[in-house]
Amino acid sequence: MASSARILPHRPRKGDLTRQSILERASALASQVGLAGVTIGRLAEEMGLSKSGLFAHFRSKEALQEQVLLFASHRFIEAVARPAISAPRGEPRVRALFESWLHWARTGTARAGCVFVAASTEFDDQPGAVRDTLVRLQRDWLEFIAQAYRLAQAEGHFQAGDAEQFAQDVHGTMLAYHHASRLLGDPRAEQRARAAFEALLIAARGAGRATTAGSRKRRPGKEKARG
Amino acid sequence: MASSARILPHRPRKGDLTRQSILERASALASQVGLAGVTIGRLAEEMGLSKSGLFAHFRSKEALQEQVLLFASHRFIEAVARPAISAPRGEPRVRALFESWLHWARTGTARAGCVFVAASTEFDDQPGAVRDTLVRLQRDWLEFIAQAYRLAQAEGHFQAGDAEQFAQDVHGTMLAYHHASRLLGDPRAEQRARAAFEALLIAARGAGRATTAGSRKRRPGKEKARG
Repeated sequence: MASSARILPHRPRKGDLTRQSILERASALASQVGLAGVTIGRLAEEMGLSKSGLFAHFRSKEALQEQVLLFASHRFIEAVARPAISAPRGEPRVRALFESWLHWARTGTARAGCVFVAASTEFDDQPGAVRDTLVRLQRDWLEFIAQAYRLAQAEGHFQAGDAEQFAQDVHGTMLAYHHASRLLGDPRAEQRARAAFEALLIAARGAGRATTAGSRKRRPGKEKARG
Repeated sequence: MASSARILPHRPRKGDLTRQSILERASALASQVGLAGVTIGRLAEEMGLSKSGLFAHFRSKEALQEQVLLFASHRFIEAVARPAISAPRGEPRVRALFESWLHWARTGTARAGCVFVAASTEFDDQPGAVRDTLVRLQRDWLEFIAQAYRLAQAEGHFQAGDAEQFAQDVHGTMLAYHHASRLLGDPRAEQRARAAFEALLIAARGAGRATTAGSRKRRPGKEKARG
């Protein structure tokens, strides 16, 4: 599977525990203050380390921020992509991908705010190595979703459609969920994200109409226009 | 229309031009560096004004950031909500809302990055007055979309469904468009956003199946699994 081969190898090297623990703290800091707020000075202060010690590890703020992205990406892949790949190819894998993504957003390091969501708006107009790394990681992830979709087509589970469209749609579902749950504290955010995803699956199967806008639980005749 | 009445009155007072021009610059700054980066000191520096002068206007960083949100909200409402309200109620209004939103994202002040998208991740875990204002504005906007949906139900254009689900889905479509166009520079981002929106409309009408994942332009028999 080309895309999984592309996104899976970002494992940190072994025997590199100090660097690991620094990146762990830097990643937590990025979840709180955004990736742009992760500087060598601030991280040194947070960890009670000398700036010169951190410079020896990372050499520049940009290199530190890039490493934080790669570290967070590794975590994301382990938590979301790997479980998906363990599921049978086809619709079960697409579904596993979405489930593990939701689970990660609710319970993982993303609970404190997704580094990628924040970095995407922080760096979208800041050219440079950090943005390049972010773009590469985000493109790889969307391609991973698209590839899972194509496999489901090959398995005969999905009839037709554009895999990149599906990837952008599922991504939108997750971004809206992130916004509604984290910023707005909406208790129905997850239920709606699931309904939106089911509608995408139904459209992909080409069987029946989409059930988004909550029509899964609609009761004909009980609808009222509230406007 | 309850929700439009709620979101429309944020007009700046007249005779307040200095404050207006300061907020204009502050808003532009927020588009570049995020709302959290808009401080009285930084703004004074950008505008060649004294910090004490700006303090006289805004008293605190938080008050400044709140005013920037209200200013940006006013612009957004003028550019997106007002044209929608000029369209006939029902599906035409829902469509006008989406069209003016896309237009605003492509060409308006949002071209430099949407203040609301950035602030949503900057402030989602920072309790306080700025976050409260942001949450109120974002809830009002989602309610505006939901209300347009309910009117379309009342007009008989949409058959069934949950208006809040529709609002979250359209918001996700816009967030994914923002990400794909601004960060990834994907030339097909807008085409996909439109396809996703059409699929939501079709589902809302309850007529036929959703056309998301690009099935608007699919040619049966020409689909190939690329996986």
